[in-house]
Amino acid sequence: MSVITIERKVLEKNDNVARENRATFALEGVFVLNMVSSPGAGKTSILEKTFEHLRGKIAVGVIEGDVQTDLDAQRVARFGIPAVQIVTRGGCHLEAGLVREALQRLDLKSIDLLIIENVGNLVCPANYDLGEHERVVVASTTEGDDKPLKYPALFRTASVMLINKMDLVPYLNSQPEVLKKNALSINPGLLVFQTSCVSGAGIDAWCEWLVANAQRNASKR
Amino acid sequence: MSVITIERKVLEKNDNVARENRATFALEGVFVLNMVSSPGAGKTSILEKTFEHLRGKIAVGVIEGDVQTDLDAQRVARFGIPAVQIVTRGGCHLEAGLVREALQRLDLKSIDLLIIENVGNLVCPANYDLGEHERVVVASTTEGDDKPLKYPALFRTASVMLINKMDLVPYLNSQPEVLKKNALSINPGLLVFQTSCVSGAGIDAWCEWLVANAQRNASKR
Repeated sequence: MSVITIERKVLEKNDNVARENRATFALEGVFVLNMVSSPGAGKTSILEKTFEHLRGKIAVGVIEGDVQTDLDAQRVARFGIPAVQIVTRGGCHLEAGLVREALQRLDLKSIDLLIIENVGNLVCPANYDLGEHERVVVASTTEGDDKPLKYPALFRTASVMLINKMDLVPYLNSQPEVLKKNALSINPGLLVFQTSCVSGAGIDAWCEWLVANAQRNASKR
Repeated sequence: MSVITIERKVLEKNDNVARENRATFALEGVFVLNMVSSPGAGKTSILEKTFEHLRGKIAVGVIEGDVQTDLDAQRVARFGIPAVQIVTRGGCHLEAGLVREALQRLDLKSIDLLIIENVGNLVCPANYDLGEHERVVVASTTEGDDKPLKYPALFRTASVMLINKMDLVPYLNSQPEVLKKNALSINPGLLVFQTSCVSGAGIDAWCEWLVANAQRNASKR
């Protein structure tokens, strides 16, 4: 029982810091995403495609969360974008406090859109608000179409879903339409994009949504 | 600091129960695997293929761990195999105590090989010994070849790796040889099988290894 109590305290403390982060984002006029997925669903590849498309349109920054290594930060740094790497050293999710620390190394005033790439994990990140505006879950077609039913918390707390690796659909038994139906059965309000970093499909629509939201958010500053 | 202390106590307690489980397995002569992977890497599909191949050769039982739903237990139950479903209701890994509870619903005397399918998660299960003989990590070719570097704890504590979805390699940028090299750089002792549940490749070799180990283990009873 004591463990449950402490876990609640940890979550309460996290939620307080998340609220502070959200206030910071509001003050600086930054639109913030928390991207979550299984390991290898393609979050970093989507970021690479996204940064290519957004170049010259809006100013982007990124916080990379990883259990170990800064491989992802190296990948996104090639785009000349302000990037901070958080290495959790075994930790299975990002917490609001880690994001707050990372924010101190970013010039938020010069950023319209901040993307936080969470640790690859479909379970634990669901409980940790980072202060983001939108939680984006990336589901790969290769993972099978039952994932929203088996990992409902993340799909319930997300507002956007990318169904990624659409190029592989011809070679799979799973069907993106079933995946989508299962996700909407958990969370009818999910906004769904179907994307492929190989063919480029869906990246335009996703980026248009990002630009529209970042601009609308900035206009509130 | 208090959280860290309690986390240590949780792990100590888990390790004690894992030792008890191991003693039970030794007493009953059951060979036990703990299968871990990202969500959707194909653990349950491998189990289905494995059960087909092992039919009439050795007696198999299964414990299914899931965050939510008994979809996987339903899939394996079709093979007429003793199966117990553990639903963690949001919990991100199996613990030795949950396995101990599940064992009470299995007739271990009539089982040669017990496969525990863990929750789909490449991070948290690394810390929780269930009392298994071998920890088997399933890495899908679609997840990219950098996963062992990014999630080293699980690859370090596993003794066997299945590189699954080999049939999709022609359609991917990632290379199984690089994945294998990265895994061996983390854990040079890993035994590696390359498998496909679509083509059936590698399933024979994997099942031969299972039978040999289960029989050797039973002979010690």
